Formats: sequence, C-alpha cells, structure tokens
Amino acid sequence: MTLRIVEIFGPTIQGEGVLIGEPTVFIRAGGCDYRCSWCDSLHAVDSAFRHSWLPMEPEAVWQQARDLSGGQPLTISISGGNPAIQDFAPVIALGRAEGYRFACETQGSIAKPWFADLDTLVLSPKPPSSGETVDWAAFADCVQAGQGVRQTVMKIVIFDDADYAWAKDAHARHPDLPLYLQPGNPEVDPDLPVDPQALADRLLWLTEKTMADAWFAPRILPQLHVLIWGNKRGV
Amino acid sequence: MTLRIVEIFGPTIQGEGVLIGEPTVFIRAGGCDYRCSWCDSLHAVDSAFRHSWLPMEPEAVWQQARDLSGGQPLTISISGGNPAIQDFAPVIALGRAEGYRFACETQGSIAKPWFADLDTLVLSPKPPSSGETVDWAAFADCVQAGQGVRQTVMKIVIFDDADYAWAKDAHARHPDLPLYLQPGNPEVDPDLPVDPQALADRLLWLTEKTMADAWFAPRILPQLHVLIWGNKRGV
Repeated sequence: MTLRIVEIFGPTIQGEGVLIGEPTVFIRAGGCDYRCSWCDSLHAVDSAFRHSWLPMEPEAVWQQARDLSGGQPLTISISGGNPAIQDFAPVIALGRAEGYRFACETQGSIAKPWFADLDTLVLSPKPPSSGETVDWAAFADCVQAGQGVRQTVMKIVIFDDADYAWAKDAHARHPDLPLYLQPGNPEVDPDLPVDPQALADRLLWLTEKTMADAWFAPRILPQLHVLIWGNKRGV
Repeated sequence: MTLRIVEIFGPTIQGEGVLIGEPTVFIRAGGCDYRCSWCDSLHAVDSAFRHSWLPMEPEAVWQQARDLSGGQPLTISISGGNPAIQDFAPVIALGRAEGYRFACETQGSIAKPWFADLDTLVLSPKPPSSGETVDWAAFADCVQAGQGVRQTVMKIVIFDDADYAWAKDAHARHPDLPLYLQPGNPEVDPDLPVDPQALADRLLWLTEKTMADAWFAPRILPQLHVLIWGNKRGV
C-alpha cells in the first residue's frame, strides 16, 4: 500500500505544542479533507500540488526517517495535510520495533485505529477563522481511538476574539484533554520574511487576553520554527 | 518564621523549561548562594538589594499569591535567587490545601525536605560560563529530596561550546532526568530593549549545534518572557 508523502525532514526541534523543543524527524503526508483559510502547509493540502507528492511504500518512508536520525531513536512526527486520511500503521510498527517514538498531528476529523499505536496524539480542531466547521462526533471518535496513547492533547490556533471564545467551548467539550493555545500566524508565504517582533506581539496579545480573563487551563505557546526559520519549508 | 521575598507577580505564562507556556504566579525569593556571571535576577541575588526584599510571613506570601490568581488554582512557581535557602513548606502547604500546584526552580546546591511537596522540581546546575562550580553530591541530594515529586527535570543554560560539552557530562550523571537546554541571554539589563531577532539567532545556533551532533536527549527552548517582555521585571 503506497503512501503520498510531501516531505520527510529533520532532525530539528518541534516548534509548537506539547512536544515543543523536542528533537524530531517530520513526515509530512499529502492530502487533506480541510482547506483552512490561513493554512501554512498548502503544499501538502491543495491537490494542485499533488504532482509533487511522492508515492512511497511504508518501508521506504521508514528507511528515510531512520537515515535522517542516523538510526538513533527519537520522536517522529506525522503531520500533513491530514495524515489520518492514510494508513501509517506499517510505518509506526517499523519505527517502534527500533525504539522510536511517534507523534501525529491531525484536526480530528477522521479517526484511525493506528492512533492507538502513537505516543502522542495532537488533535487540532479548527476555529471559526479557518472557515471550516468541526464535526464534534468525529472528533470524539478520534479521542476514543487514541485511548491508551501516552498523551492526547488539544491544540487550537487563535487568530481573533471569536476563535478565543470558540476555544473555551471546545475545551468545555473535552476538559480532560490538556489544552494548548497558539497565536495564529497570518504571514505564511515561504518567500517572505517573518518579523520576530510581530510574532512576539501576537504571543503577548494572546497571553494578556487569556490572563485578563483568568483562564488558566491552557498553555500558551508560539511557533518556534517560525521564529527561527520564518515560513521556510523542510526545517 | 519570616521569608525574604523579592516580588510576587502574575498570573502570566511561564517563559521557559518544562512548564513553558503554563499560566503561573511567581514567588521570587531573595538571597542566593551563587553569583553567576550572567545572572538575570541580580535584584534577587546580590545582597546590595536586600533592603528591597520584603520580610513576609508564609500566610502573607500565600495570601498575595492567592489574590493574584483570584482564588482560582493554578501553578505557583517559587524561584529566586535560590529559594532552597529558605523554608517554603508552609506556603506550599497552604496552597496545596486549596488545590494549587507548585513548582520550584533552584540550581540544586541545597536540598530541602519541602522539595517532596512540589509538583515540579527544576534543577538547574550552572555551566562553566557562570563562573560557579557544581557540587554534584549536593545536586544528587536534591534529586533524592525530590523523590515522589511528579516531575523532576534538569535545565541547563548554554552560552558557548564549553557549556554545551559540560551539559553532556551533566546529563550523563543524571540520564533519568528529562533535560532542557536553553540558550543563554547576554542581554540582561532591564532598562535596555532585547532584540527578538538576536534571541531567535541564539535558539537557531543551539538547535543546529545539537542536531548536527545528533544529540536527541534534550529539549531546546528559548525564554518566551524575554521574547515578549525583554528583561522587564514583574511580568
């Protein structure tokens, strides 16, 4: 069974969320059931780019990730697009047999049995600014599929006040999932530089808003990869 | 028994280490057995500032931290200076009784029984660039005192290649402690602005160095509070 792969890169640090700072090799899967207005990975989402996605056997995917890490076990993050439209069970099985840990980031629209084989499942439901609508029954199926995973967390990108209010409702639906908020990045053109001060300002805005509201449930984190590399790909 | 307190502030997000992004009220203790060359909290270390440290009863310390959080349980971080030269057991007992969580950050030079009452113990041994020398027997006593704590971690600030090499040795001494590396911040004057690009550059330097070395044990994180507030105090 062939996988559609956009890129395999690393090791580098995970830039966001619960594993922030963690040395990671990334496997980016091609294809997505969403089309968020502010998507920062359109090259993995828009089927106009599908000619650039590589058809790869699971063994080849695993071999490339392994080679990048020099055979030294670390965390492998499967992202996309939405990786849950494909079957990553064989890749995970090959890696786990050699002591690697696996994380997966998905919006939580499609549940897959292989979620149970992960170490970390990041469910990232999309707020109103995305233009998408969350199917909360499907999301709950994803949480259920991740039972037994060492950690399942919720991560929400916040662009504006409406997203913030929505995040509180989302947290109320799944209060047991550790919650991570992340200020949205409106600058997603890989050819344009990112202003670190603007990134700092957005983090300040979200921090002050959340603290003023006395909402202490979420952790608030920026995207470190954007801070250090801008929107460049493959880093 | 009176405590010497520099400042109690928050809630704001924890800017660094294992609890990065976590809403936190900070209690900064006055006094330190170290005098690191690059100390970013000299106002809590140098006894020339001791006239500005408030003598407070544990009940008053707790009341102020509680008031800042509006009585809503969150994480309270006890830092310094070195908080382990004082007895925070009564403050922790008062807070835990109301559901608050406690973290403490210390260099690991003095072990205290109250470490066992924490949720998170951050031991931060100082590398050569600090000008200090670590007493590893005392450090091991601190790890021992923290047995039963939910998480004990090691955090090391890295200014240069010598610090980096030293961090590998430190990790080899305590391989079971999750390790966090943090690029050093040479700009510690609270009256001077911090350049976010310089901070990004230092994070890039440390990330590239560690990845090129294929050392995947540590997580690598910046100081978010410096990114968003510079070296301003009380935020």
